[in-house]
Parts: sequence; C-alpha cells; structure tokens
Amino acid sequence: MQRPARDKNCIFCKIAAGEVPAQTVHEDEHTLAFLDITPRTPGHTMVIPKIHVPSLIELPNAEVAPLFAAVKKVAGLLSRKLRCDGITIGVNQGRASGQEVDHLHVHLMPRWHGDGGIAVQSVINNKPKETLEEIRKKIAD
Amino acid sequence: MQRPARDKNCIFCKIAAGEVPAQTVHEDEHTLAFLDITPRTPGHTMVIPKIHVPSLIELPNAEVAPLFAAVKKVAGLLSRKLRCDGITIGVNQGRASGQEVDHLHVHLMPRWHGDGGIAVQSVINNKPKETLEEIRKKIAD
Repeated sequence: MQRPARDKNCIFCKIAAGEVPAQTVHEDEHTLAFLDITPRTPGHTMVIPKIHVPSLIELPNAEVAPLFAAVKKVAGLLSRKLRCDGITIGVNQGRASGQEVDHLHVHLMPRWHGDGGIAVQSVINNKPKETLEEIRKKIAD
Repeated sequence: MQRPARDKNCIFCKIAAGEVPAQTVHEDEHTLAFLDITPRTPGHTMVIPKIHVPSLIELPNAEVAPLFAAVKKVAGLLSRKLRCDGITIGVNQGRASGQEVDHLHVHLMPRWHGDGGIAVQSVINNKPKETLEEIRKKIAD
C-alpha cells in the first residue's frame, strides 16, 4: 500500500517522520503518541495517525481502528503510570472547534479529583431552538 | 460470542435495548448513536457501544473499531446534514473528568464559527511542575 503523501509544512508530519523531536510515549506502524509541548495537565498526550489527514472524517477506514487502539493503549498507560483518576479524551475537528494543527490529533488529558477542570460538554453552550425530534429528522439517514 | 451482561440500572443499556426511547441517528450491531437530551449544541449526539463498559480502557479490543467507525460515520452525518463548521468530539473518562453515566459514550457536538465555544484543551488548567522529559520517563513503556 502506498502511503498518502505527507504535508511538507505540517509539524505533526515532521514529528511522525522523526525530523522534529518529541517526547514519544508510544509508537506503532500507524500511530505516534507524544506529549503536548504546552501541557494542560501532567501527562497531556496527543495521539496522531502517521498519515496526514485534517480530520476523523477524512481518515481512511483502515486507519480508524489502529488510531483508537493506540488511544486505548495510551489511556491505559496514563492511568497505570500516573495513577490519574480520570482522563479527558478529545478532538477539535475544524477551526470552528479550536483545531490549530490541521493533522488529526486526539488529546488525552489526565484528570484528578479536585483539579478544577470541567466536562467536555462545557466547551460550548449553544442550545438548539428546535426540538430533538426536528433535529433527528435532519440528521438521520 | 456471549455478550457481556448489561447493567440493569444503566440508562444507556436501557436505551440500547430499546426499553427507553431516544432520538436515534445511527444504529448497527455494535453501537447506537442518539441525541443528548440536554443538548449543548444543535445535533449534540452520543455514540455508545451496546455492551456495558464504563470506559475506553475497559472496552474489549474487538469493540474499539466498531465504536469509532460509528463515531466517524456520525461525524460525517452531522457535517453533511447540519452543515456545521466543525465538531467537538470528546469522552469524559471517570468522575474526575466529569463522567456522569458510567457507560462509555462519545460526545459529538457540532460547532459553528462564532458560536462562543472553546477548544477541548480548555476544560482543564493544571499545568505540570515537572519537565516533559521527566513525565515521559514515568509514562513510556
């Protein structure tokens, strides 16, 4: 299988290729996991596919399972090694959600009781005007 | 394969079994996706595995790929049908991170430019005292 072309200006492609150093905590054929250089919590890690895609929607189906197998593995590592009480796992998909690097990355942020953080739902408060039934009809296939 | 026992007190197990109604936007053998009854944004959806596990760490390896294939599918549905500009995708793992229902669920919250929301990293500000290198040594296998 020919690997899709990397993006020559992408910092995460450079990290995946070993051209830019990173604090790597896991690597396999399909994925790389490394510490965020501006950590929000101790052990704040990002898991990326090695191929360059901006979003989960664009990730080839064959790469979905390896990526989230790696996310599961890293979640286990963080829990065991750092003895955290929980983990916030999240993806910003698109500039509108706060994505800054256009290479799909999954954030894992270890959490501890009383750490002052909030739940992922709290990132947005844009309650719909329509009913759930009206919204469902728009979405469902 | 025998399916792991459901939790008789779990609201999401009841929804997965069809005993409690929900606004379903996708269903397959392994997963169910339905609208959050307290939506933070129009189209706020949760994707769950049908088996009862509290966290990604406890999800059997064979269920990881189906779950995130469904997450990818629902992300595509939300983008196409609601024409959102982005999506916040997130999991609260453990009470310390804000998890309220102890059945693994992936939130997908459609985002629009100027909707007033923030990035997933912003849920926590608990910056580490140790260096990245010190933290990496604790975590890496």
